Amino acid sequence: MRMYDLIKKKRDGLVLEDNEIRYVIEGFTKGEIPDYQMSAFLMAVYYKGMNDHEILILTQCMAESGDMVDLSDIPGIKVDKHSTGGVGDKTTLVVAPIVASCGVKVAKMSGRGLGHTGGTIDKLESIPGYRTDLDREEFFEVVKKTGLSVIGQSGNLTPADKKMYALRDVTATVDSIPLIASSIMSKKIAAGSDAILLDVKTGSGAFMQEVDDAIKLAEVMVALGENAGRSTRALITDMDTPLGKAIGNSLEVIEAVNTLKGEGPEDLTIECINLAANMMVMADLGDPDECRRKAEEVIGNGAALEALIAMVEAQGGDASVIRDTDRFGKARYIREVTAVSDGYVVSMDAAGCGIASGILGAGRETLDSVIDYAAGIILEKKTGDEVKTGDVLAILYTNDEDKLLPAEKKFRESVIIENRQVERKPLIYALCSKDGVKRFDGNF
Amino acid sequence: MRMYDLIKKKRDGLVLEDNEIRYVIEGFTKGEIPDYQMSAFLMAVYYKGMNDHEILILTQCMAESGDMVDLSDIPGIKVDKHSTGGVGDKTTLVVAPIVASCGVKVAKMSGRGLGHTGGTIDKLESIPGYRTDLDREEFFEVVKKTGLSVIGQSGNLTPADKKMYALRDVTATVDSIPLIASSIMSKKIAAGSDAILLDVKTGSGAFMQEVDDAIKLAEVMVALGENAGRSTRALITDMDTPLGKAIGNSLEVIEAVNTLKGEGPEDLTIECINLAANMMVMADLGDPDECRRKAEEVIGNGAALEALIAMVEAQGGDASVIRDTDRFGKARYIREVTAVSDGYVVSMDAAGCGIASGILGAGRETLDSVIDYAAGIILEKKTGDEVKTGDVLAILYTNDEDKLLPAEKKFRESVIIENRQVERKPLIYALCSKDGVKRFDGNF
Repeated sequence: MRMYDLIKKKRDGLVLEDNEIRYVIEGFTKGEIPDYQMSAFLMAVYYKGMNDHEILILTQCMAESGDMVDLSDIPGIKVDKHSTGGVGDKTTLVVAPIVASCGVKVAKMSGRGLGHTGGTIDKLESIPGYRTDLDREEFFEVVKKTGLSVIGQSGNLTPADKKMYALRDVTATVDSIPLIASSIMSKKIAAGSDAILLDVKTGSGAFMQEVDDAIKLAEVMVALGENAGRSTRALITDMDTPLGKAIGNSLEVIEAVNTLKGEGPEDLTIECINLAANMMVMADLGDPDECRRKAEEVIGNGAALEALIAMVEAQGGDASVIRDTDRFGKARYIREVTAVSDGYVVSMDAAGCGIASGILGAGRETLDSVIDYAAGIILEKKTGDEVKTGDVLAILYTNDEDKLLPAEKKFRESVIIENRQVERKPLIYALCSKDGVKRFDGNF
Repeated sequence: MRMYDLIKKKRDGLVLEDNEIRYVIEGFTKGEIPDYQMSAFLMAVYYKGMNDHEILILTQCMAESGDMVDLSDIPGIKVDKHSTGGVGDKTTLVVAPIVASCGVKVAKMSGRGLGHTGGTIDKLESIPGYRTDLDREEFFEVVKKTGLSVIGQSGNLTPADKKMYALRDVTATVDSIPLIASSIMSKKIAAGSDAILLDVKTGSGAFMQEVDDAIKLAEVMVALGENAGRSTRALITDMDTPLGKAIGNSLEVIEAVNTLKGEGPEDLTIECINLAANMMVMADLGDPDECRRKAEEVIGNGAALEALIAMVEAQGGDASVIRDTDRFGKARYIREVTAVSDGYVVSMDAAGCGIASGILGAGRETLDSVIDYAAGIILEKKTGDEVKTGDVLAILYTNDEDKLLPAEKKFRESVIIENRQVERKPLIYALCSKDGVKRFDGNF
């Protein structure tokens, strides 16, 4: 078999055989197929796509390219969660403690953010002392003891995906459904949980700007998960505007803690309860309504917050910052961005807010960049809100004074205020499961 | 400027700015843009194409990536010739001496073959002593003295093309009109002649299997040449079946010599006279009919053959093998392939005949392969001919006895004999010049 012939075959829109896909993934992972052939192949896949069976085999080969984690030593049903990523998305910090306090086991490996805002691991690392580099034994112990553990990706998990993603990232071949779906699902399958909840974002701040594309991606991923013997559900949620009010690492942890206390922003709270409920449904804890009630219950009685605190302590973190979020390190420079006209916020671009937050220091440009954990934005107004001249739209936080003005400029560009009311976009568009797609009208 | 953005721009089908194309070619030539980004870019160009202006700028940048040869020290009009390549194509060996003996200067740099059959340089190197590595001064001297010189590509000519072609060759991005046209024309423009004649092949043994695609490629190349201030014409010629009867290096030189004596196969003779006439038209030697008559004249009076002999001698070759082609080294093993049924040759696949010839030793698989100059095939029957059982279809020549049977097998697979007469395909389909496309009906 020659890589040349397989590039040509896919270039011409033909369907690859199982052993051909295996040859590509194994050869590339071993370094026998050079990057320049792989990137031409990936561009051909970008244009010509793959059928469901090809994506299934691709995902299997990628999952099997490294370690397959075996979580069977941990009793109970393990449920994983993955978000396709967005600005202000701190749902894992809320959802994992909720479901853990209801009896679902969450043994989650999460990524660092490479982009404008940090990933879940970066957010957790804003808690002083929190260790994300547990070894396998420690990881299992924390899950057994507290019901949940969130650590960084370690070991040799899906090396094929690691190499492919690095290449896609620099060759404009990221936004392809077969490649996104296989990348996400190979990692989730290799990570070993029994069930997988996907949060597929749609809107200006997401890979999939159109709802229908997001549903298509979700359907492909649900099929991949189910095919691998894992219960899989996906919620299609909005990322046109940031989720919640906080963007930035410790700011988001604080908002997550507030949400676990029942004092979070409405959109974040609703979304988290629905994500948690769907995870519980897959863990056989009842029907969706029952599960939503359970989620509300563990928020109300403080059990969910205690689960977060237990995990933080078990992983070496200073839980006093969770109990009293005023103890988090504060940004030295704070700036209010105020409205210069009356009207309504008709749009607040998630991607633009993310970039502004990145300018303030909340993200990393390269793998070596150091994150300013206190940096970020608190949104005081969101899409649909009425504003008067002089009202505070947002507060910017940073430890680098020079970043305030460029961040304000970028933030202002991302917010449109006009003299007309607009309807808020739905928060949750649809649920995909093995039973098909259920679209929701309006807010969930 | 970032290569990532330019890949994405072309991926999305947008038109690149001049400075963007320059950035790609300069960056890639210098090694600042890695192969894996370039191959993704080339695949995007494969799918999305380029408009005429983009191809023009691409070609300019590629031509200017290395030395631009200045032939102005050689008096007279210098005319170059390029064939897109085919099996049995020895036209340069016939055409260059014809036009040189009519007063056109030919200062030609030619390539080695990497494929089933040798390139013009390989064919010339089958003449004992013939040097293809002249330096600039020697090259100019030979042209001034004999009117023609054919040498190997030397110096730093179009390094951008060299790198791009090597990458295209292993990433299935060769057959793209913008990439083929810019590759060929950048080299021809850098090589410095005043006028360029293109022989664009069409049919099973060519890049462009369809006549209309070949015409499109020719039109693009003619426009590129004219835009660079070079008179440019293109003939679209058949490569469904090999040209002439000989395939293989010294076998083709012998056939070229016979053609210069007026004793060549009819198809090769007609095609060479027309190629030569078009070169002469661009050198202002008269209208096409006059130029064809001149070509026939220098064949008839032996002047063309003398021009070849003069060049061979000037480049250190043993001209006695040209005067008496029986002196060429003979293959040790010879095998006649005979017909096993009566009928007509309804097709003789050029590519298949080329592969059979390659098996016999006439080509090289890698740049290091050693060519067997005496190896090859003499076709005794061609498409349209009637055959009786036992008739010799072809004679195979090689110095490696083990290659006879596999070559015969491949050759037989390439020839279809059926009980029905077929019309021969036209030899020349069309002429492209700055005045447009002139299609020919039937044989020229």
